[in-house]
Amino acid sequence: MTLADIEDLPDNGLIVPAAMMGAPTVMLEKIPSGQEVKTAVKRLEQSVQREAVAIMTIEAGGINSLIPLAVAAELALPIIDGDTMGRAFPELQMTSLHVHGLSATPMVIVDEKGNNMVIEAIDNPWTERLARTATIAMGGSAIIALYPLTVQQAKCSIIRGTVSKALAIGKLLKHPAIDPQNKLTILNQGYNAHCLFTGKVVDVIRHSTDGFARGTMSAVSLASGQDVLRVEFQNENLLAMLNGTIVASVPDLICILDTETLQPITTEGLTYGQRIVVLSLPADPIWHTAKGLETVGPRYFGYDFDHISLRGPL
Amino acid sequence: MTLADIEDLPDNGLIVPAAMMGAPTVMLEKIPSGQEVKTAVKRLEQSVQREAVAIMTIEAGGINSLIPLAVAAELALPIIDGDTMGRAFPELQMTSLHVHGLSATPMVIVDEKGNNMVIEAIDNPWTERLARTATIAMGGSAIIALYPLTVQQAKCSIIRGTVSKALAIGKLLKHPAIDPQNKLTILNQGYNAHCLFTGKVVDVIRHSTDGFARGTMSAVSLASGQDVLRVEFQNENLLAMLNGTIVASVPDLICILDTETLQPITTEGLTYGQRIVVLSLPADPIWHTAKGLETVGPRYFGYDFDHISLRGPL
Repeated sequence: MTLADIEDLPDNGLIVPAAMMGAPTVMLEKIPSGQEVKTAVKRLEQSVQREAVAIMTIEAGGINSLIPLAVAAELALPIIDGDTMGRAFPELQMTSLHVHGLSATPMVIVDEKGNNMVIEAIDNPWTERLARTATIAMGGSAIIALYPLTVQQAKCSIIRGTVSKALAIGKLLKHPAIDPQNKLTILNQGYNAHCLFTGKVVDVIRHSTDGFARGTMSAVSLASGQDVLRVEFQNENLLAMLNGTIVASVPDLICILDTETLQPITTEGLTYGQRIVVLSLPADPIWHTAKGLETVGPRYFGYDFDHISLRGPL
Repeated sequence: MTLADIEDLPDNGLIVPAAMMGAPTVMLEKIPSGQEVKTAVKRLEQSVQREAVAIMTIEAGGINSLIPLAVAAELALPIIDGDTMGRAFPELQMTSLHVHGLSATPMVIVDEKGNNMVIEAIDNPWTERLARTATIAMGGSAIIALYPLTVQQAKCSIIRGTVSKALAIGKLLKHPAIDPQNKLTILNQGYNAHCLFTGKVVDVIRHSTDGFARGTMSAVSLASGQDVLRVEFQNENLLAMLNGTIVASVPDLICILDTETLQPITTEGLTYGQRIVVLSLPADPIWHTAKGLETVGPRYFGYDFDHISLRGPL
């Protein structure tokens, strides 16, 4: 695979983002055929009557970090060093491309059985609505290619460097000679990551509904035996409350790691008894703009409060 | 408008059927923009990269008898004298084209807001499933263009003469010099229509759910004051029971007419107090084949009985 800097590609070249849509809990059981991503990219190329010069990841999180890498390798295309969220969000209008006024359509949605659809919608929330119901009809997860854009458009609208940033953090977390506590210190100094909580998962309520994995995780501090952290999620973590007080929320990142290995635990992997450390990291600045908060702020997700600044280490 | 005999069109010409999909109860309130049908036909032409030589009606019933006429007039194309059901059925795989192995896709679905989708599915039941959920997401009704086919394919697979038959019946029912009883006699002699029941609607249970108008109508005989006819429907009438005994069912036609005017009353128009005459007519022979009954027989609709032959006049 070739990681491409957006500056090195021709301005009028076509970039095709690809991703999984739906509940990651479903994809654990409904196995892909392996053809879907390539079909989705090819069908989108056909729809805009151009060939892609590069593939891009929509979101840096979970399986959607890797699906674009796989199809880029298969099609022998470079992958853009960047994404459209600087993290992961659950809905497809929650992208920097949307904030910059770009359309998610024409969009292709493909299932593992061989069904596909090309959607053209009047705006990105409608695209989300139509694609979400299609995803549910296809069994709860599907593969999508969307937001076809030129390199020139991408230069003004993507979040750059996400893939190399993820690679650097991955290398740090896997480094055999640095102990977990020092790794957390480096994450704090290098990426402004704050430790919200350390403890044990005591409860996970999870339901795969409306094409999402929604739920709540509760953890108890092993140090105090009393403090309780609750994290609410919709595919991604939305909100962290410590003893009932909000300590972090969308659009900022709430990351749950295994205390020993510091490997991330995604929402579909949470289970009783896990020892976890919970970090918050500030979102890309685009999400703290008025349009950013309107798109992914707490109120969009149904919470009755404005975005709060992240607290420092507790 | 020009009514075209299929024999008069070039064999390789493209025919585009167009229709409304969803619950007719919804369309009474969700007003079309007027552009949808033309958009659907044009989008389907674009998808198969050919221009249509004629428009066809999918089903001879309710609004779907007239939508294709309107778009044919708008596009200055002839309308085929035929349809794909010889009546109306509620799901889009319930066509003679399906029985003959033709694909419903590529299929276009368009809403009044300007959203559209092109569906390509692995089989016609999957097309129905994907299009039905899209229809629900679009608000419960939408406009579709589907089953693109050549004149040659149509020659072997459509039900011919439906439009001229409907015109002839319409002329008879509106004839000012023939009284209703004589009209019913002519319908019996000319079209094998049997009168199942005459009475008053005493109850209508109707719910618009899953993209359909489903429900049950009950009527009491005014002659005996005791006999009860119950008709169950899913957009179209499925089953008629007289005092609990099945007297007609899919695939045969169950038609409810106003006793005075003999105008048809569609399922969304049924209401308490109407004086009705209920007729049964035999379906086109294609629906009495094994594949026909599998597609639209009582068991497909969840009833635990095999198709019964129509009874004669009671």
